[in-house]
Amino acid sequence: MTEQKKAVVLVSGGLDSVTALAMAQAEGFDCYALSVDYGQRHHSELDAAKRVTSAAGVTLKVLPLDLRTIGGSALTDDIEVPEEETSGIPVTYVPARNTILLSLALAYAEVLGADDIFIGVNAVDYSGYPDCRPEFIEAYQAMARLATKAGVEGGEITVHTPLIDLTKAEIVQRGIALGVDYSMTVSCYQADGEGRACGVCDSCRIRRDGFAAAGVPDPTPYQ
Amino acid sequence: MTEQKKAVVLVSGGLDSVTALAMAQAEGFDCYALSVDYGQRHHSELDAAKRVTSAAGVTLKVLPLDLRTIGGSALTDDIEVPEEETSGIPVTYVPARNTILLSLALAYAEVLGADDIFIGVNAVDYSGYPDCRPEFIEAYQAMARLATKAGVEGGEITVHTPLIDLTKAEIVQRGIALGVDYSMTVSCYQADGEGRACGVCDSCRIRRDGFAAAGVPDPTPYQ
Repeated sequence: MTEQKKAVVLVSGGLDSVTALAMAQAEGFDCYALSVDYGQRHHSELDAAKRVTSAAGVTLKVLPLDLRTIGGSALTDDIEVPEEETSGIPVTYVPARNTILLSLALAYAEVLGADDIFIGVNAVDYSGYPDCRPEFIEAYQAMARLATKAGVEGGEITVHTPLIDLTKAEIVQRGIALGVDYSMTVSCYQADGEGRACGVCDSCRIRRDGFAAAGVPDPTPYQ
Repeated sequence: MTEQKKAVVLVSGGLDSVTALAMAQAEGFDCYALSVDYGQRHHSELDAAKRVTSAAGVTLKVLPLDLRTIGGSALTDDIEVPEEETSGIPVTYVPARNTILLSLALAYAEVLGADDIFIGVNAVDYSGYPDCRPEFIEAYQAMARLATKAGVEGGEITVHTPLIDLTKAEIVQRGIALGVDYSMTVSCYQADGEGRACGVCDSCRIRRDGFAAAGVPDPTPYQ
């Protein structure tokens, strides 16, 4: 029996990351989930991350990193989350968020001796964030291969983005096929303490449309 | 009068970062210092960062990020710091440290609207860390230019490494010329509560040799 390859999976507790986790497991990786508690308003996402990883039998590490010290986003600051579609990069963008998340995942991968990192970014039904684009991920991987002991010793870090080319509907379909229970996930930018979604923010809108387009009943608990 | 360009400077409180700060100021940048409290043993480095930035008239932001959650280094874990020269990457290497520090600096730069980041990495008298090499910095900058709003809107992040090609003696000489008071800095991996250096760790050895080679009296308070 060959040993399972380890992978670090960034799990926020939202629909995308939970699907990415299920896909990483389906590919045969021994998964280690990492959540970053960056002072996000939708703290119930972290509770979702705990439920989901527990159901998947995966160890979850939660790293506190209070990005409110830095500020600059409606998700961490006292800026109103918009309830209508906006153009350009929205105020919910967290500065350099994926760069930071991937860097923490890289550190964890190095400690575990893992060469693989999964992140559920998506360049189709996304909110216009610069750090969700394929060219960003490629540049990140090139940098990561030089950043670590593994890079010096000839190892190969791979940043997997299994959702990057999928529509939200396709993501939902893949997840359902892999047995993901989406009622456990929280995507809303302003979910309440019980993890119930507002139904009107950008993230809720994209998610609801995804279930509709996939022809799957929306299991999201709304407020 | 043209407005001063803003720059984020990563300041640990050690000899190198403090010199980098002085060089950034000498280049005319309006500097914003960022220290990361990553649970390092030598906490007195942070006290040094406070003293030094205060003396330089620069705002210091200290971001708590407890990397002990991830582990894997003698600087954050309960691993003995070696007191003799070792070959290869030493146990004092913090996994993905500069990748993480630069990512936090990138977020801060984005919030400030700054295009410039300074980091005092050095590829000459260094300890063999992969993330101090010029090829890493180049790859990081390429990634950073794609990671942010500025990248989408055509901005240009520059990662400045003014020390990268200097010997420790040259760094000391530049700093002295710019009026840096090195007695305020702490480089030791296991400094005591008052910031006094052990004199025997890798970092102390490199620093002491630097003052000697520069022909400058070593102002370091030793235990």
